[in-house]
Amino acid sequence: MNKLINDPARVVADALRGVAAAHPELRVDHEQRVVFRGDAPVRGKVGLISGGGSGHEPLHAGFVGMGMLDAACAGEIFTSPVPDQMVAATQGVDGGAGVLHIVKNYTGDVMNFEMAAEMVETEVVAVVVDDDVAVQDSLYTAGRRGVGATVLVEKIAGAAAEQSRPLGEVAEVARKVNANARSMGVALTSCTVPAAGKPTFDLPAGQMEVGIGIHGEPGRRRVPAGTAAEVAEMLVAPVLADLDFTGGDGVIAFVNGMGATPLIELYVMYAEVSAILEKAGVRIARSLVGPYITSLDMAGASVTLLKADDEILRLWDAPVRTPALRWGV
Amino acid sequence: MNKLINDPARVVADALRGVAAAHPELRVDHEQRVVFRGDAPVRGKVGLISGGGSGHEPLHAGFVGMGMLDAACAGEIFTSPVPDQMVAATQGVDGGAGVLHIVKNYTGDVMNFEMAAEMVETEVVAVVVDDDVAVQDSLYTAGRRGVGATVLVEKIAGAAAEQSRPLGEVAEVARKVNANARSMGVALTSCTVPAAGKPTFDLPAGQMEVGIGIHGEPGRRRVPAGTAAEVAEMLVAPVLADLDFTGGDGVIAFVNGMGATPLIELYVMYAEVSAILEKAGVRIARSLVGPYITSLDMAGASVTLLKADDEILRLWDAPVRTPALRWGV
Repeated sequence: MNKLINDPARVVADALRGVAAAHPELRVDHEQRVVFRGDAPVRGKVGLISGGGSGHEPLHAGFVGMGMLDAACAGEIFTSPVPDQMVAATQGVDGGAGVLHIVKNYTGDVMNFEMAAEMVETEVVAVVVDDDVAVQDSLYTAGRRGVGATVLVEKIAGAAAEQSRPLGEVAEVARKVNANARSMGVALTSCTVPAAGKPTFDLPAGQMEVGIGIHGEPGRRRVPAGTAAEVAEMLVAPVLADLDFTGGDGVIAFVNGMGATPLIELYVMYAEVSAILEKAGVRIARSLVGPYITSLDMAGASVTLLKADDEILRLWDAPVRTPALRWGV
Repeated sequence: MNKLINDPARVVADALRGVAAAHPELRVDHEQRVVFRGDAPVRGKVGLISGGGSGHEPLHAGFVGMGMLDAACAGEIFTSPVPDQMVAATQGVDGGAGVLHIVKNYTGDVMNFEMAAEMVETEVVAVVVDDDVAVQDSLYTAGRRGVGATVLVEKIAGAAAEQSRPLGEVAEVARKVNANARSMGVALTSCTVPAAGKPTFDLPAGQMEVGIGIHGEPGRRRVPAGTAAEVAEMLVAPVLADLDFTGGDGVIAFVNGMGATPLIELYVMYAEVSAILEKAGVRIARSLVGPYITSLDMAGASVTLLKADDEILRLWDAPVRTPALRWGV
């Protein structure tokens, strides 16, 4: 296990110390393992929180800040945070305009966010993200899994909240993004959870898992490793088959790295994805290329497409200031 | 070899297609393999170019844009670009105020940038970056290697150029950054050059190479893998021993990922680095955490410290708009 850690049991706590040290503009509650905007709660603004198992960094703590999340709850690696964490986050970002919970569709996350919502007096609306077209149900999910679209929901709903829109509208924006986004991923290697000390699943060299989940859950099928062009086709075709992405104001095309795949390969993938989209008559309005929702040290990539309208593009372009996404400020 | 590529011989060309597709604000000369700012040459501004072997992404093309580089030359993987590329880049960014060459200290890069400077009529000043304290000479270098400080030189000198300072002053800023920066890295795994198809060096599981170069060149010693705290000490101690980082206006502390090491581990490392610096009386003024100068799919990290003064911090904070570093715009 080649990891830069101190102790498998302390990885999340240690990383949060690092986040606190590197980002003095954020505030870290080390006991509850919640990362807050330094100025939370922002009076009169809808608070946005998310959270989930750790191991997907920069998701979620890397997206805390002006124009995106107000707080993020860090669970243990690949393990849902507990309701107490979500209660602390919800109360800590409650500026009087209600709180939106952005929840990836995994059974534990959904259940714990629901319990937390019942435990607070704050008005809470939850939006569940379920953009992964690979499988209908999985080991950890009833219904589709939430993956890459989570990043887009957090950015775009975060911008809507920053405009002081009311809770119902911010939730509507989040639902619209989720409804118009689809994703699919591939793994070239497994990942290794520090506490387990061995790969989560067995993937022989020269094979890849198409439709992989972000915790190493099985995908659709295992096939021999292909070229970037072939892999891009395997990821984009099911996405395009699931929703009509032509027309409108184009798409936000997001090629995501799973953790261990270097950026040069993500750009090779992006070249293939954009060529496929051009051929399919899908216009790219904006792009995002990089490791934004990862699976520890898994090698692989995912593709997310979001069918955009003018409102989505304006909210995407709005200023954001977080550790992992920043522009305009 | 688990890589998302089409053909080992086409990786750089394919990635540049991806860069062009993802970043319409840049202009890619696919024949010369040079990535330009879309508005280059900027009249009256000193042009900044850099370049080197590919495989270190986002360095250098990911740092092309307002406030940083005007152009970047992409060599083959771990291979210096040829002088013709540097000539094309130099001429393409010549806005009448001269051009600064930012050159990492590798024999091929230094020689080819020198030849290019002789082949153009543009006024050129070269600044060689050599911040790696690990080894005095190496397989590819006379003198110290240029590593993490390159990112800081490009950002800070880029900001100086954006203020319309003359060539001599911009070069002086670049030299000051290099003179006040020191780095050291560690590898937990080798990397695999696509055309070679097998790991560049042999590193048994449970061992690490302390003082690794960004092409897998040998470092100072091979030791059993340690905790993040131990590794941080092995990297920071030689850096602190090489230059007095106390006093002044604090340091810019940069924890860099080598490619395959996930962000959560880089934050664990940052926590340890910041604790060591605090104990040593070194104040952190700014930080940067992430994979910014990588070695393909190598697992590992490096630490760069830059002793800052007020001018350096102001230039660091100045607006920048590139694919990989962006703020203020």
